[in-house]
Amino acid sequence: MSMINGFSDADAQRLGEQERQLIERRERLLGPAYRLFYERPLHTVRGEGVWLYDETGRRYLDAYNNVASVGHCHPQVVEAICAQAGRLNTHTRYLQEGILDYAEQLLATFPAELDRVMFTCTGSEANDLALRIARHYTGGEGVIITRFAYHGVTGDISELSPSLGAGITLPAHARTVRAPDAYRLGADNVAAILAEDVRAAIADLRANGIKPAALLLDGIFASDGVLPDPAGFLAEAVAVARAEGLLYIADEVQSGFARCGERMWGFERHGVQPDIVTLGKPMGNGQPIAGVVARAEVIEQFGRSVRYFNTFGGNPVSCAAGKAVLDIIQQERLQQRSEQLGSYLRDGFRRLAERHELIGDVRGAGMFLGVELVTDRQSKSPAASQTRRVVNGMRERGVLISAAGPLENILKIRPLLVFEQEHADLLLESLDSALADAQV
Amino acid sequence: MSMINGFSDADAQRLGEQERQLIERRERLLGPAYRLFYERPLHTVRGEGVWLYDETGRRYLDAYNNVASVGHCHPQVVEAICAQAGRLNTHTRYLQEGILDYAEQLLATFPAELDRVMFTCTGSEANDLALRIARHYTGGEGVIITRFAYHGVTGDISELSPSLGAGITLPAHARTVRAPDAYRLGADNVAAILAEDVRAAIADLRANGIKPAALLLDGIFASDGVLPDPAGFLAEAVAVARAEGLLYIADEVQSGFARCGERMWGFERHGVQPDIVTLGKPMGNGQPIAGVVARAEVIEQFGRSVRYFNTFGGNPVSCAAGKAVLDIIQQERLQQRSEQLGSYLRDGFRRLAERHELIGDVRGAGMFLGVELVTDRQSKSPAASQTRRVVNGMRERGVLISAAGPLENILKIRPLLVFEQEHADLLLESLDSALADAQV
Repeated sequence: MSMINGFSDADAQRLGEQERQLIERRERLLGPAYRLFYERPLHTVRGEGVWLYDETGRRYLDAYNNVASVGHCHPQVVEAICAQAGRLNTHTRYLQEGILDYAEQLLATFPAELDRVMFTCTGSEANDLALRIARHYTGGEGVIITRFAYHGVTGDISELSPSLGAGITLPAHARTVRAPDAYRLGADNVAAILAEDVRAAIADLRANGIKPAALLLDGIFASDGVLPDPAGFLAEAVAVARAEGLLYIADEVQSGFARCGERMWGFERHGVQPDIVTLGKPMGNGQPIAGVVARAEVIEQFGRSVRYFNTFGGNPVSCAAGKAVLDIIQQERLQQRSEQLGSYLRDGFRRLAERHELIGDVRGAGMFLGVELVTDRQSKSPAASQTRRVVNGMRERGVLISAAGPLENILKIRPLLVFEQEHADLLLESLDSALADAQV
Repeated sequence: MSMINGFSDADAQRLGEQERQLIERRERLLGPAYRLFYERPLHTVRGEGVWLYDETGRRYLDAYNNVASVGHCHPQVVEAICAQAGRLNTHTRYLQEGILDYAEQLLATFPAELDRVMFTCTGSEANDLALRIARHYTGGEGVIITRFAYHGVTGDISELSPSLGAGITLPAHARTVRAPDAYRLGADNVAAILAEDVRAAIADLRANGIKPAALLLDGIFASDGVLPDPAGFLAEAVAVARAEGLLYIADEVQSGFARCGERMWGFERHGVQPDIVTLGKPMGNGQPIAGVVARAEVIEQFGRSVRYFNTFGGNPVSCAAGKAVLDIIQQERLQQRSEQLGSYLRDGFRRLAERHELIGDVRGAGMFLGVELVTDRQSKSPAASQTRRVVNGMRERGVLISAAGPLENILKIRPLLVFEQEHADLLLESLDSALADAQV
């Protein structure tokens, strides 16, 4: 079961004795599910700001991880966690003000109609809960996703994550639609194609006696290859789904919390109104917190007739971390920085494309960036092996990125939101050099 | 959708203005799923050792929460979290030694055959993953649970949690068996009844064309009413299931980590060998960490062909908290204390039974205790309203407990493992008084 940018045993011979032993010990304790990044896995011991440090003290510029989005070990987050962990950490069956203050602050970042929040611990749990809510609300079962979607790892949600590979069998209640790939389908066509596919999926579910419940879409189609443009392309498909009685679930686990620059949430770039939004990854800068935001009517119907209690969900320590993250995004103007530096980086990638034939397409929103590599710009033939070489070449040069997409040929680049221009320049220089090496 | 020991709007009139406003704000932000304990909900602001403090500074003896098991805000756990949060908090796609050290220490508390661990963030995720693994391993789908089981809140697992009430519809692939209730079925009969029910459930699944995958049982049958005795009653049922090719999943989310006294894990009291064990609640003393421990063969078959990655699962901060908890259990001899003080409390409850006709049965293992209340000892008629009065009476007296069981008549008492005898005595005195009031 291979994984893009995954370490494989065949790579082990290149490693030193210490790494080999660590990997062996890991396999013996955790089993084979625990896959590592890179041909030469990174042994991390410390993080600070935009940097991760390995055991030799070498530092790596983090242009990949969208969890520690406000910077590794941000002092304000650490302080919030420490203070609250020493004061109180219990569950939501007791009254507490921290969760309410945080909920208020979080909901204020959403359109007014989205005014209720429920907390979970992981994005998988958030999507799983969103699906339960949507099914309860609609009385339907069917779900529409993109062809190479990733939404999480619970039993119900892993089935709706075909990007997990051959181990996943699409259930009878799921239908897939083509991802809105402007590069391959044409920017002028994606909106109409997506709407048409959604319409057909609904019809096909109905023809098979399955009532549709939800259209579940990643805010930036990360696993489908990072597909943000043209902004607005979601509107028609969402209108079709809602007109047909489906709920639209915006999966913002990856695209949320200022990652996409111009707006706080990925769906906002498309001018659409979700019924449910799911949150996760950067929400607590590493502290396990995630959640579901929804229209009152939707969440209330569920909450009144179904009992849902998540023991650690919304605990005071996780809420304190979440609050610190929102504060930092505002204080350090990270949404604006994401927008500006993301744009700077896209310009930089386009300049690299003048010298590197490998670059077929440059795209992104804010600091969620995709660079698609092709062996031929006319045929757009995917450069999968070169993509792997670039990712590993970047790691050797001390910059962390990864890859995505059904053809395994898209560089997935997500600089921490606290990048400065010097870090962006280092990323661009390293990519220039790694591309030169990979092209040979 | 009522809940044992749940606050209801009808109780609101008794509250002060501040509480009413807090509850209203909560409803407006979080919706109706967020149910509160007690007729007069507790507003918690601080925790320390065995005590929780409300906003007026009044303290409550915590004889209920089995998350902060080693004591609220235990300095060693807080220090471990703070130190690690300031150093590194990232995911398992990089090599890290902390997760391996913790995995080794954790696995050392299990029988030798259970030698692999995978980390999740919640007990629900752990049971969800265990079910995925069992289905993958057996190629089956059917699951056997007890009639009033609780295993979690993901889509797949909530369906296997009939104790969640009428909102839950048992799926076609599930079968229930009678809970091993020695008080109502007879201590000499529970082993044979359970084995017979499991045999019948397997036969019925097969007769309906459903291949059975797993027997999923709580280590102390908490939601079924706290059913620990006679130790050993699981052996025959587990033997039947395993002989028929099912995996036995021991759900130790509630009963694990020394809670049951004489042994670290609930299943060990029965002399049985699980294929998979699930962990959660007290694992990180409030830090969201949970996991699945299993035989190598079982986990490896899954891990080799299915991709599973839990972003926050096994992160360094959660592992540091988990390690601190294991250290504290050993240093403070909490397993022995659970055993001794649990036995002391059961003796105390039995002495109370001499004066309080309401007490029909006293049971428990270690500090997981059940006191069943009946209006008549001959007919064993359940005293549900009195149970509710006792739970609320204890809260008014400054001691936190709750209730469980299909008949809503069992006091669920789980003192923090760091109780001293004086705390046990305070619990007994308060219960004496609350029972006297409830009997009227």
